[in-house]
Amino acid sequence: MDIAILGGTGKEGAGLGARWALAGHAILIGSRDAERAAAKAAELRERTGKPSITGHGNAEAARRGEIVVVALPATGLAATLPEAREACRGKVVVSTVVPLTFGGPRLFTPPPAGSSAEEVQALLPEARVVGAFHHIAAHELSATEHAIECDLLVCGADAAAKETAMELGRSMGLRPLDAGPLTNAGPVEGITAVLATINRRYKLKNSGIKITGP
Amino acid sequence: MDIAILGGTGKEGAGLGARWALAGHAILIGSRDAERAAAKAAELRERTGKPSITGHGNAEAARRGEIVVVALPATGLAATLPEAREACRGKVVVSTVVPLTFGGPRLFTPPPAGSSAEEVQALLPEARVVGAFHHIAAHELSATEHAIECDLLVCGADAAAKETAMELGRSMGLRPLDAGPLTNAGPVEGITAVLATINRRYKLKNSGIKITGP
Repeated sequence: MDIAILGGTGKEGAGLGARWALAGHAILIGSRDAERAAAKAAELRERTGKPSITGHGNAEAARRGEIVVVALPATGLAATLPEAREACRGKVVVSTVVPLTFGGPRLFTPPPAGSSAEEVQALLPEARVVGAFHHIAAHELSATEHAIECDLLVCGADAAAKETAMELGRSMGLRPLDAGPLTNAGPVEGITAVLATINRRYKLKNSGIKITGP
Repeated sequence: MDIAILGGTGKEGAGLGARWALAGHAILIGSRDAERAAAKAAELRERTGKPSITGHGNAEAARRGEIVVVALPATGLAATLPEAREACRGKVVVSTVVPLTFGGPRLFTPPPAGSSAEEVQALLPEARVVGAFHHIAAHELSATEHAIECDLLVCGADAAAKETAMELGRSMGLRPLDAGPLTNAGPVEGITAVLATINRRYKLKNSGIKITGP
């Protein structure tokens, strides 16, 4: 698969790109600044030994990708996504965005839409938006030599789009679980606030979540 | 400890009461209807073989308890808690309340305060409110012969109150984790929406959550 990662120069986006490159996918790193994207792509090619990692502007990455992953900061969606709207038409778009505000009165600060994934869907109305990969610590993604101890929670309206995201998770060794419709994205994204708090309180970098039962 | 459980005739409240009675605590089941509370208390005495389980009106249970557990429906807080306000002054109050709306457009429906625990704190301003025990399936609580496969996430402003809730968790074999301030109660309560969805999709009654890392 050709996977575009908007905001792919960030820790989470770059970590996902590295894992997927190692799993055999072609990665299109997107950034506001195409030169920064190219530099990050070169760094990831070096790190993974995989040649199929390239850098582009965000909209160009979205055009070239078969799947588009949105790994932008929560506050940057409205500025960045409209230029990618046409490129995302009909495509599976995976939002990994977490609406957290550090240093404010409240860590979890979802937008009026209810969640960042729902905001992505509102900005890309013709895309098949799925929320996933919020809980996989960047620190774990970059440590590519060991397995990630975290389940993959996937939510969205489109069952086939969810299955695509689940397959992307399996390709990096994660167990995917269907966490329901996109209206569950708020609770799914909120788990990241709990994990970030636990990381701080217990001096960790890599707390994760496992669902018991299934 | 003498533990009052407001809404203790419900599945979750009664399940917690049974587990705590078996751990050696005295349980005061509270209900709007003192007779229903007395009947549930008799049933739990029979089930657990523990004599120290009694039934009362909610306000009376709150007065008698050293710790007050709020296991009411999310929509019933404003109607029930004001009459218990004086009785809860200075006490540790544990909110297990989850703001879920089944059959509507959105499962997770927190109140304007941000979470049910924050609504409890607003209604009981002199109480030391903690959010906890949202994820322990009633089905698991009632199966008192086996250990519960779920971590206990505790949030709140008062460190000593949190420690009390953590100790209540340890007394039923749970591993407690500090999930931060009461402003994290929304994300903590939201996890129940994810678990309820997974229960439905995977035909389970007892999904739970484990935090990896700590």
